[in-house]
Amino acid sequence: MVLSRADAAALDAADPLPDVRRRFVVGDPALIYLDGNSLGRLPAATPARLAALVEGEWGERLIRSWNEGWLDAPGRVGDLIAPLVGAAAGQVAVADSTTVNLYKLAGAALAATDRTVIVTDRGNFPTDRYVFDGLAEVRLVDSVDDVPAAIGADTALVSLSHVDYRSGAIADMAAINTAAHAAGALVLWDLSHSAGAIPVDLDGTRTDLAVGCTYKYLNGGPGAPAFLYVRRGLQGELVPPIQGWFGQRDQFAMGPAFDPVDGIERFLSGTPNIVGLAGVEEGVGVLAAAGIAALRTKSVAQTTMLIDLADAWLAELGFGVESPRDADRRGSHVALTHPDGRRISRALTELAAVIVDFRQPDVIRFGVTPAYTTFVEIWDALDRLRELVRSGAHETLPDPTDRVT
Amino acid sequence: MVLSRADAAALDAADPLPDVRRRFVVGDPALIYLDGNSLGRLPAATPARLAALVEGEWGERLIRSWNEGWLDAPGRVGDLIAPLVGAAAGQVAVADSTTVNLYKLAGAALAATDRTVIVTDRGNFPTDRYVFDGLAEVRLVDSVDDVPAAIGADTALVSLSHVDYRSGAIADMAAINTAAHAAGALVLWDLSHSAGAIPVDLDGTRTDLAVGCTYKYLNGGPGAPAFLYVRRGLQGELVPPIQGWFGQRDQFAMGPAFDPVDGIERFLSGTPNIVGLAGVEEGVGVLAAAGIAALRTKSVAQTTMLIDLADAWLAELGFGVESPRDADRRGSHVALTHPDGRRISRALTELAAVIVDFRQPDVIRFGVTPAYTTFVEIWDALDRLRELVRSGAHETLPDPTDRVT
Repeated sequence: MVLSRADAAALDAADPLPDVRRRFVVGDPALIYLDGNSLGRLPAATPARLAALVEGEWGERLIRSWNEGWLDAPGRVGDLIAPLVGAAAGQVAVADSTTVNLYKLAGAALAATDRTVIVTDRGNFPTDRYVFDGLAEVRLVDSVDDVPAAIGADTALVSLSHVDYRSGAIADMAAINTAAHAAGALVLWDLSHSAGAIPVDLDGTRTDLAVGCTYKYLNGGPGAPAFLYVRRGLQGELVPPIQGWFGQRDQFAMGPAFDPVDGIERFLSGTPNIVGLAGVEEGVGVLAAAGIAALRTKSVAQTTMLIDLADAWLAELGFGVESPRDADRRGSHVALTHPDGRRISRALTELAAVIVDFRQPDVIRFGVTPAYTTFVEIWDALDRLRELVRSGAHETLPDPTDRVT
Repeated sequence: MVLSRADAAALDAADPLPDVRRRFVVGDPALIYLDGNSLGRLPAATPARLAALVEGEWGERLIRSWNEGWLDAPGRVGDLIAPLVGAAAGQVAVADSTTVNLYKLAGAALAATDRTVIVTDRGNFPTDRYVFDGLAEVRLVDSVDDVPAAIGADTALVSLSHVDYRSGAIADMAAINTAAHAAGALVLWDLSHSAGAIPVDLDGTRTDLAVGCTYKYLNGGPGAPAFLYVRRGLQGELVPPIQGWFGQRDQFAMGPAFDPVDGIERFLSGTPNIVGLAGVEEGVGVLAAAGIAALRTKSVAQTTMLIDLADAWLAELGFGVESPRDADRRGSHVALTHPDGRRISRALTELAAVIVDFRQPDVIRFGVTPAYTTFVEIWDALDRLRELVRSGAHETLPDPTDRVT
């Protein structure tokens, strides 16, 4: 029996997190936004925070603000993210992009060993694969399941995305860590599609290294600074390849040689973007208040409902479900496939006011952001999709260009 | 004969650039800000621009904004900076920090040759030296004047700051480039203290590579994204060590191997900070409208006046002038020395409302930003400094902590 729209509305009425949605700007009520896994919505408090920073801290206090909260922002905001990814304080810092942080941590791991190989999977996010290609010999496996068998005595580092950016599948962090450690390798996880979306237990799984972006589920804003995690016991053993003055002990002594601080800040490089950090602090603050357990419960209910509706309405129209059907193995987005997926994705946005995104060659991603996505939005989105494809309206569009994730 | 305050006021009245000062926020009229070479003032148009970006482009347009001006922002803002540093279009991009950009360009230069040495000077900015130490064998010379003799057949790269962050001395870009090229080496200039402050002629001097920050004279905001320059003829020959998806040809095809684009964007890495880029665009726009020639003329008059007043008033109080007295060899800040400089710097801010900064071991830097610094501010600052030291008021302060540059 298929859920009715009234059923979806009843689920929204019973939502234990309605106050969280109200902490985001939802401007156009007709627009259904299922692309929070590419760019999260604007938290309602962010404009005023950024205005106060720009006009007050920069405009009035000027350079003095560095000693009034700016210098320690990378570690302070890192400690705010830490509980969302299962990390004790002092192990997370926020600065630079996910790509640069991947490079720094993978480079540091390689420099600390004679081993030369990085193991990753063919489906890992492009920038991760490109970074590794520039650093080391890369051993590509076809699937995350093949990773343990590919780890050998030559393996310096195993690096995977915790949640697959296409399918939404969750990799088994604990099992991969155990396999890597048994072979003497370190592990670096990319949490871009999991931080703020699903529970992560970096400390509990004995993870060595992790990075993640803040502009998806953490709602930090476009291109906001990314985070990095280095297990405390490992911090003193690793030196980042980019030796910058923000990682230097007694930074303003400006001494002759690089002498990294003991803590997580040694993995910083240049001057951090302060406006970007403030956006991350606001976005993470909303999620931290909601709690990751409650967010996950709602997310599972929503992605399950989405798949149920897809089975009921869309299978007969040529759609497949690429995401795991087992909710425990699924992150907070759902991948549907369709041979004409590219054009359908564009038509959904342009003709039906539903924003999703498309991934080569045939994946339409529906990002569920439990902080602000409603059950009715999901119901309406799939209903509009069904009508669109039934009517053939998407076939009137030319082949579209891609959008960013 | 020493300039009177009325003379300084007359110079302000004749200032051909008063409209430029009005384009900055100058909140507290009693505060004299001579630290624009650490963090430039807030342009008046920036708060509204950032608010429109955050509330409109992010909050309303959401992910669609990537195709409505965000994706090409690094190159667009780069092309806005280009005329200020003597570069034709298509050679400057804005993203990441100065430190990361230094790493990318120096690393690319080293990867393109069998040569192994980077030549720089002992007085170069700390993050530059630390980056090079992490990348290669570094040959340190005591002075920029010693650089040509230190370049040999083993030299991959010569890298210097165009304007010395302590003394304000301008290095001879054309001569260094000629010497390096004659020996088969590339040259990488750090323009952090020259972009927007003095004319730079990257193309005309046949410079290979350059980087610079945007939070000083370009007024882009705290930790705003930095710029990098790669001479057009060299772009296809160099591959950055950080191979990121924003440097990838046909980025959203997400292909299996790194295949860098032909243009300057190959030196981008991860997702650029969009709010930061907008701040840079506003800050650079103000200077571009004023023109670097007019700014330089005013800057020379102001730093000359500052040195004249220091000679007349401060020499007898134990101050020295470390900056070049030849205006053609001096950037837009003046370094005065005093054995108690650290405490005097702090007292100037706390007791006399004059913000300067201190550099180890004894340098007090006065940053002149011709876009908004007035002649009367300089006169008053030196007058207050004279009174402060004469009265011994600074001796009541404890030893201070440093501030950021």
